[in-house]
Amino acid sequence: MYRTSLATKLKLFSRFVRKFSFVCVSENQENLIVDVGKGKEVFPLVWLRDNCRCPSCFHKSSTSRIINWVDFNVSPKATSVQTTSDGNIVLQWNDKHISTFSLDWLKKRSFKEDAQQLYLHDNYRPTKVPWSCETFESIKKTYEYEDLLKSDEVLYNWLFDYARYGIVFINNVPDEKHAAAKLCKRIGVIKSTHYEEEFKIKHIPGTSNVAYLSDALQLHTDLPYYDYVPGVTILHCLIQTDGEGGDNLLVDGLYVAEKLRQENQEAFDLLSSVDVNWQDIGSEHGEKYHTILRCPVIKLDIHGNVDKIRQSGPQRDSHFTVNLKKVKPWYEAMKVFQKSITSESIKLKLRPGEILAIDNVRLIHGRSSYSDSANKKRLIIGIHLDWDDLFSRMRALKRKIDA
Amino acid sequence: MYRTSLATKLKLFSRFVRKFSFVCVSENQENLIVDVGKGKEVFPLVWLRDNCRCPSCFHKSSTSRIINWVDFNVSPKATSVQTTSDGNIVLQWNDKHISTFSLDWLKKRSFKEDAQQLYLHDNYRPTKVPWSCETFESIKKTYEYEDLLKSDEVLYNWLFDYARYGIVFINNVPDEKHAAAKLCKRIGVIKSTHYEEEFKIKHIPGTSNVAYLSDALQLHTDLPYYDYVPGVTILHCLIQTDGEGGDNLLVDGLYVAEKLRQENQEAFDLLSSVDVNWQDIGSEHGEKYHTILRCPVIKLDIHGNVDKIRQSGPQRDSHFTVNLKKVKPWYEAMKVFQKSITSESIKLKLRPGEILAIDNVRLIHGRSSYSDSANKKRLIIGIHLDWDDLFSRMRALKRKIDA
Repeated sequence: MYRTSLATKLKLFSRFVRKFSFVCVSENQENLIVDVGKGKEVFPLVWLRDNCRCPSCFHKSSTSRIINWVDFNVSPKATSVQTTSDGNIVLQWNDKHISTFSLDWLKKRSFKEDAQQLYLHDNYRPTKVPWSCETFESIKKTYEYEDLLKSDEVLYNWLFDYARYGIVFINNVPDEKHAAAKLCKRIGVIKSTHYEEEFKIKHIPGTSNVAYLSDALQLHTDLPYYDYVPGVTILHCLIQTDGEGGDNLLVDGLYVAEKLRQENQEAFDLLSSVDVNWQDIGSEHGEKYHTILRCPVIKLDIHGNVDKIRQSGPQRDSHFTVNLKKVKPWYEAMKVFQKSITSESIKLKLRPGEILAIDNVRLIHGRSSYSDSANKKRLIIGIHLDWDDLFSRMRALKRKIDA
Repeated sequence: MYRTSLATKLKLFSRFVRKFSFVCVSENQENLIVDVGKGKEVFPLVWLRDNCRCPSCFHKSSTSRIINWVDFNVSPKATSVQTTSDGNIVLQWNDKHISTFSLDWLKKRSFKEDAQQLYLHDNYRPTKVPWSCETFESIKKTYEYEDLLKSDEVLYNWLFDYARYGIVFINNVPDEKHAAAKLCKRIGVIKSTHYEEEFKIKHIPGTSNVAYLSDALQLHTDLPYYDYVPGVTILHCLIQTDGEGGDNLLVDGLYVAEKLRQENQEAFDLLSSVDVNWQDIGSEHGEKYHTILRCPVIKLDIHGNVDKIRQSGPQRDSHFTVNLKKVKPWYEAMKVFQKSITSESIKLKLRPGEILAIDNVRLIHGRSSYSDSANKKRLIIGIHLDWDDLFSRMRALKRKIDA
């Protein structure tokens, strides 16, 4: 073990420390600099102190930082930096505390932008790939139901494709009402809303939801009136009409929104800044509900990326509580958006035994009208989940597969 | 009934139409102007056409717009405006369609700013009232458990106070493990996370969550690693330690954030723009999870208002995937925030039979360390719900009470 006193630069040439070609603390006592032969890696000292792995700073069984932040010093100084033959870097701080980091651990937490982007893509969320009606066939992925139940790797790939494209199919689903639920329970917690956990989409006269009519269902996203709108919609076709209609219409709202941003910035700005009152009112199991959410059609995240799409004519409230001057321009922008989703939509008809999984905060979907016949009453079982759960499952599966 | 041809201005003086002193369509065919004696109300024609209440435009039993938006004209022209003796306004459109609106219906949808603000406060969400450690006693509201179960009005007031202050108390809760759940089921759907629906907060050695230790629990918000972080945290004290400690520490994150915005804009900007990786990793019921969310400590909505607060040292990941230049400034800003939440926190000790309800995306909370004695093992039952459900319940209760 070598010691470098008072945090001066030190090159370490030794057969014991081959892993490092260079380790030092910067002169301003802000950063640890590690050269691993492939260029410099810079780690801020405050971040290192905050992430000390010793048992008094980090609780291993709960994977939790337990440093008392009330006393935490955001300008810690290192009095020495040492390296060990087994690839560790040992920092001694000016309060005598000692922190040890392995080179592997540090490399995984590189502050280089390309490494960070790779980390996010592999570990956080896959990068979304927008698609149009012209490219749909090339991104359409179909999996086998049994494979998803049996193989972690297949399930991981399915989740990854689902997150990337917002749509994915499953074939050979058993003709059982709870077949979709069985798969969903392998992924996460089935989401409870004021509808059933496993909701039946079929023709119900006098319904409290237009989805339960057999009329055409215009392009929409489900349950836009929830702040915590379900992101994952699983649709299992049990019975399809044997007549005309009953087709699903689908369009990638992400593609349409990005196209709008390119082609009509003003319309994009209006649809991403003017709050719409989404609402649902009714009763289920004798309990009345009245859900309202104010949110633009295109919800951006803090970096300006498209986060969620909400669109549902039936559930757009007549209360439009925005500045009067915005009303007409908003309608004009919405009309442009409507034209685009109509022209970019694809049409397909689910067969019994098929599951269609869509990202409900991205894919705008509809259905053509249909008629039930005496022995074929169209029946789709729908289930909602949250993306939180799917991403969590994806990461846990990846760790298991990589192990 | 009077007819005004070609949408010219028309003053209606008649004993049949006393309700209106003035109704017309603006010359540019953009707005309907209604003077009800208390100043002009302006309603855009496109909005009126979009909200036609006739059976071919509006499906009453599902309270849904069913206009086919593919063909919707965002520049509709009115060919006549009529008024009826019973307070209706009848518009005929240039495509011969006829829409009828009652004056009451229109007034409720006024585009005047003060009317809109009142509508939102009464019907959407109550305006939040920030509080400091000095004003806490004046906003502290305590309700009786039995009253909440029996009276819709009391439950409504409790929900309203909860939404406004982010904290509310309940006394005389029965000494039963499911007493909190019984009340919660009257409000909404108990939220499932990877922890139990009714989770026990007690000392568990070798836990996967620091909350299940008996050590001091630093100021934090629960489950920040969920995009759909539970907003509602209900804590029912069944057993309290008879020794020292076990106090709850509570601070209004909204107050602290707004104070920071006033006093240190730079720190506020950093904490509301730099993404933090919140994470949880472990297994529950044999199922592995790995939840990550990238989100700033202070999450703003699109209008710049504080939407959600996330703060949890234990669950802030060592992966800090932000630009290197932001790291040190972020830590400095976080230290300012930490000092403020520490100095603004209040301390109280729950008694058995008490429920503490906190807004988990607003209130930052902690606990002092404690020791169980042989016959007093501290036990708190926790339940999470979503604000979506609470707001929905609040609105439904208001309609019931007002009816």
